[in-house]
Amino acid sequence: MDFSKGAAWIKGQIMPIDQATIGVTDWAVTHSDVTYDVVPVWDGAFFRLDDYLDRFETSMTALRMETGMDRAARTRALHAMVARSGLLNAYVAMVAARGVPLIPGSRDPRDCANHFYAWCVPYVHVVKPEIADQGIALWLSETTRRIPPDSVNPRAKNYHWGDFTAGLFEAKDRGFETVVLPDHAGNVTEGPGFNIFALKGGRVVTPDQGVLHGITRRTAIELCTSEGLQVDQRALPVTELMQADEVFLSSSGGGIIPVARIGERTFSNGAAGPIASHLRQRYFALLKDPAFRTEIPY
Amino acid sequence: MDFSKGAAWIKGQIMPIDQATIGVTDWAVTHSDVTYDVVPVWDGAFFRLDDYLDRFETSMTALRMETGMDRAARTRALHAMVARSGLLNAYVAMVAARGVPLIPGSRDPRDCANHFYAWCVPYVHVVKPEIADQGIALWLSETTRRIPPDSVNPRAKNYHWGDFTAGLFEAKDRGFETVVLPDHAGNVTEGPGFNIFALKGGRVVTPDQGVLHGITRRTAIELCTSEGLQVDQRALPVTELMQADEVFLSSSGGGIIPVARIGERTFSNGAAGPIASHLRQRYFALLKDPAFRTEIPY
Ligand SMILES: Cc1ncc(COP(=O)(O)O)c(C=O)c1O
Ligand SMILES: Cc1ncc(COP(=O)(O)O)c(C=O)c1O
Repeated sequence: MDFSKGAAWIKGQIMPIDQATIGVTDWAVTHSDVTYDVVPVWDGAFFRLDDYLDRFETSMTALRMETGMDRAARTRALHAMVARSGLLNAYVAMVAARGVPLIPGSRDPRDCANHFYAWCVPYVHVVKPEIADQGIALWLSETTRRIPPDSVNPRAKNYHWGDFTAGLFEAKDRGFETVVLPDHAGNVTEGPGFNIFALKGGRVVTPDQGVLHGITRRTAIELCTSEGLQVDQRALPVTELMQADEVFLSSSGGGIIPVARIGERTFSNGAAGPIASHLRQRYFALLKDPAFRTEIPY
Repeated sequence: MDFSKGAAWIKGQIMPIDQATIGVTDWAVTHSDVTYDVVPVWDGAFFRLDDYLDRFETSMTALRMETGMDRAARTRALHAMVARSGLLNAYVAMVAARGVPLIPGSRDPRDCANHFYAWCVPYVHVVKPEIADQGIALWLSETTRRIPPDSVNPRAKNYHWGDFTAGLFEAKDRGFETVVLPDHAGNVTEGPGFNIFALKGGRVVTPDQGVLHGITRRTAIELCTSEGLQVDQRALPVTELMQADEVFLSSSGGGIIPVARIGERTFSNGAAGPIASHLRQRYFALLKDPAFRTEIPY
């Protein structure tokens, strides 16, 4: 079997990724009634695995999902799958899907048989690393606002990406790498796969409400603190973002990513800022720190 | 092959519904980047087929989807699939999915190979018909607001149901049949699978913004007009809804559905209202009107 494109774990079976499917009537598809998490594998080890598993469990609880597998069973499945794939640098997704009602014709989510599956593919970068090194061009959407937290809970990691997709079309049509969305009150939120940080003087601000609490956001906060920067987790008005000295993104798909421009506004003379670049290097160094690594027995 | 539970059309193949799957990495799953429509089949004919096909094409255009099939090809696929299933009363879904990027690792929705598929199952009622006949108990969510139209376009029919699912849990836990969501301005919007109408005196109001323009909503408006009722399509404040004489829902999954209560507030002494019940009968009569029917050659 060819696992070079990735592998999946479905109902206890490990298979090549292109054979991994879900039923078209599963509510994970027809209602996007699903939660997931993504843990990176770097040089043959999971990074911060327990933090990702914690978040996944919090998401499942928020959505009232019960897949009949405990943490130990999920962990075994992830290990076996990645080992079998042979991938040393991977993007590893774990998914809890609502399933279909056990009572035919029921429209009650409590009647559904929830289920767990997982898949992994070669490591995914939200922005190509050679572009991230230089500082990226980010678009702030003019048309689309982030789905508000009283509509869909952003802390339960979810596939409701319609706002991001609309924003991505807007960004890509204008030649930008990716997009960040404002909320309905004029604050900036997050983008497709990342959180955002604004640095001014010795202070760093990152949004706290209406966003996923990224594991890389946590790593970035810890790195900033260890650099002597003060980090505020609070609403970040778009106007304040635009006055920052440096802006950067955090994502499990690429670590810390300097932003060289947002629309017409350039930062650090249109290059990656010095502090953001330093944090980016520290993130990649941290991926090798045994304290955060769970080695995979390939 | 057993088609009693339904059939699907995928890449030109017709198969039993439980064999119909989609890849776990398709953006239809991982970004809910997908649009769909659902046309009812009643007594062996599609109802208002062209209206549903029109709406599906509008949705695809809004999401910039191109599946490489024209309307004639889609229509042939639907006919062949339902005929093969043998189902005389069916819920027929047509779907356009974003697919996966043709360029591996791309995060650009413009790089994806979009695709069409379809499936049908025995006719789905959003509320059991024997309960709908009596007038249903509807819950107005206290916690969750409809995803706003500047986040996700509700007129491009979509699977972003996280708000509805949260509302459904809230409703079902309290013993209500289903839920309707308010927006962020205190107006009522729609529910999981239906639009809503409020009748007071000779006037009927149904929300116009922030909702799907249901085909059954259109039928209900036409029926109301033919009954001499004046129909206003405009924002419907929750307070006004609660003062209505009668309330009813419209859905391809059950037609016109009288509402006997919303939370503690009862309408028509807690029964189906006389006008709503009359409209419900007229809807089922219309399903037999040859002017709206496209017969299926089984
Ligand atoms: C919407 C959203 N925000 C933020 C993030 C960043 O979270 P993490 O650092 O855990 O990858 C992601 C990751 O996919 C995301 O999808
Ligand atoms: C969100 C939403 N609103 C309204 C409707 C009713 O539309 P229609 O009458 O075309 O079925 C639906 C149908 O599924 C729906 O999903």
